[in-house]
Amino acid sequence: MGGRMTGNATKQILNGDSRMVASLMSLIEDGDPKVKAVLKSIYPHTGKAYVIGVTGAAGTGKSSLIDRMTAEYRQRKKKVGILAVDPSSLFSTGALLGDRIRMRDHFVDDGVFIRSFATRGSNGGVSAAVREGIHLLDAAGKQVIFVETIGVGQDQLEIATLAHMVVVVLTPQMGDEVQGMKAGLAEIADILVVNKADLLGADETVQQLEALFADEDFHIVATSAIKNQQIDVLVECIEQHRKESVGNGKYQSKRLHLCRQELLSLLREKVFAELAKKIADGSLETQVKLIAERQIDPYSAVDQIAKRIGMKQSAVQAK
Amino acid sequence: MGGRMTGNATKQILNGDSRMVASLMSLIEDGDPKVKAVLKSIYPHTGKAYVIGVTGAAGTGKSSLIDRMTAEYRQRKKKVGILAVDPSSLFSTGALLGDRIRMRDHFVDDGVFIRSFATRGSNGGVSAAVREGIHLLDAAGKQVIFVETIGVGQDQLEIATLAHMVVVVLTPQMGDEVQGMKAGLAEIADILVVNKADLLGADETVQQLEALFADEDFHIVATSAIKNQQIDVLVECIEQHRKESVGNGKYQSKRLHLCRQELLSLLREKVFAELAKKIADGSLETQVKLIAERQIDPYSAVDQIAKRIGMKQSAVQAK
Repeated sequence: MGGRMTGNATKQILNGDSRMVASLMSLIEDGDPKVKAVLKSIYPHTGKAYVIGVTGAAGTGKSSLIDRMTAEYRQRKKKVGILAVDPSSLFSTGALLGDRIRMRDHFVDDGVFIRSFATRGSNGGVSAAVREGIHLLDAAGKQVIFVETIGVGQDQLEIATLAHMVVVVLTPQMGDEVQGMKAGLAEIADILVVNKADLLGADETVQQLEALFADEDFHIVATSAIKNQQIDVLVECIEQHRKESVGNGKYQSKRLHLCRQELLSLLREKVFAELAKKIADGSLETQVKLIAERQIDPYSAVDQIAKRIGMKQSAVQAK
Repeated sequence: MGGRMTGNATKQILNGDSRMVASLMSLIEDGDPKVKAVLKSIYPHTGKAYVIGVTGAAGTGKSSLIDRMTAEYRQRKKKVGILAVDPSSLFSTGALLGDRIRMRDHFVDDGVFIRSFATRGSNGGVSAAVREGIHLLDAAGKQVIFVETIGVGQDQLEIATLAHMVVVVLTPQMGDEVQGMKAGLAEIADILVVNKADLLGADETVQQLEALFADEDFHIVATSAIKNQQIDVLVECIEQHRKESVGNGKYQSKRLHLCRQELLSLLREKVFAELAKKIADGSLETQVKLIAERQIDPYSAVDQIAKRIGMKQSAVQAK
């Protein structure tokens, strides 16, 4: 993307042009370096959106809930962005896509932008891509951005490095399981939602959670996304949490935290790239063969490579 | 661990002492650096075990299958190690633990060592820990090592960097879903198992898979772990795959691949640690604040830090 194209793209993003947002999202998903210039030039115009992470097990109704919250925020005249992170699973059931399709009412609403991201990619590439997507939506004037992730494995905790607050979605079917989730929930959640509250046992689940977190100031809300019940209460709860966190300084330190995580992630990416260049001379393969033949152990091999890289570097810099 | 303790621990590992294996596994899981000395000294004695990755969605019966295969390998007088990687999920149902308990018959058999690893931990720490666990079991004389993982998210593809071959477990309930899994399966699997073959639709699933992979030399085996059916066929199939891969050189290049992945992982870990030291002087925080205030974009901030680190480094080295 040349300087002039970057300028045009930047202008269109700042004007909230959905087609430009969509085409840059594709570049981001493909890891195309051309998008960097636009991201740099829009960056001063970001930092206004409020980013809400929504996570939970498969089948808890996260997408439906986001769909309903989006409608509620639209009533409140807020522009909404949605980034849904699909875990790259061999065993995907296609259910996620089905959920997305239910959101199609919003597709014709220019105040809403919806995008799925596939989580395939190396070196925390997903989080990096999601961060870039958030910046785009933010610069394009979206005031509320939902990031939907599934809560499993290494992907799960990254939501806390991407969002200003995290909503964890549970269901009454989980029953006594919530006991075992206490530490995990306490670490990640700002608001707990018991969705599918129309099902049997919802009150008990809410009571269990209230007892479990009696000492903490968790918000716990029971909703039914499918019946569109208590969605306004949930959104009010989110807004209340936002105001409180701005008041007590937690929002400001969270902002710093997100910036720090982004900077560290970019720094690691750069250091990896440097490393790849330095070991591209074939000396890695020499060590690999020695390890495979058990003539050296991998821990000593790393020390040798590190030493060699360091020495080479200083030699180059001495010129 | 002092030199003498390292020597004792090494001797006990090489003698196959299960208690020493267990206590070093705990150190590995805790990320205790003391274990490195033992790993170095046992490394020349490793490289004999055959590592079989077993992956699949939750509920496919992976643990039961490993349980049965272990019994079959014990009949064949092979010593077996099992490392089960539990994904750290907020939403864990405890089902995994239940599966493990079913394996308790093997707990009293000194020819079998079973261990669960929690996948919590930063920087690919799980794979690093599993690799170290494999080396321990290998040095302790286990001839077959199963590594069980759940196939979701970023964790999923790492099994191919840990194991000599990968068995993917499916069930008849998946039905037409397998179509969408073709690319993923082709990338990762050496053997496809349709477990729960006692259920309706098993034959159709096998036929679907055979049609889907007509052009490839996949082994497809239908088993019932719960009824202990076709387990000997599966094990024979694994052994045949192993022999073939040794014969055609694939095993040798896979060995190099695993060594390369381990070396790269250790190298990244070391480079991260170096980076953390270099940016510990507070200059990161300065940039973080500037980013949060939108006075600089994160991409430019990274360039500045990289430049500064490089300069500082050369100044130190010039002394």
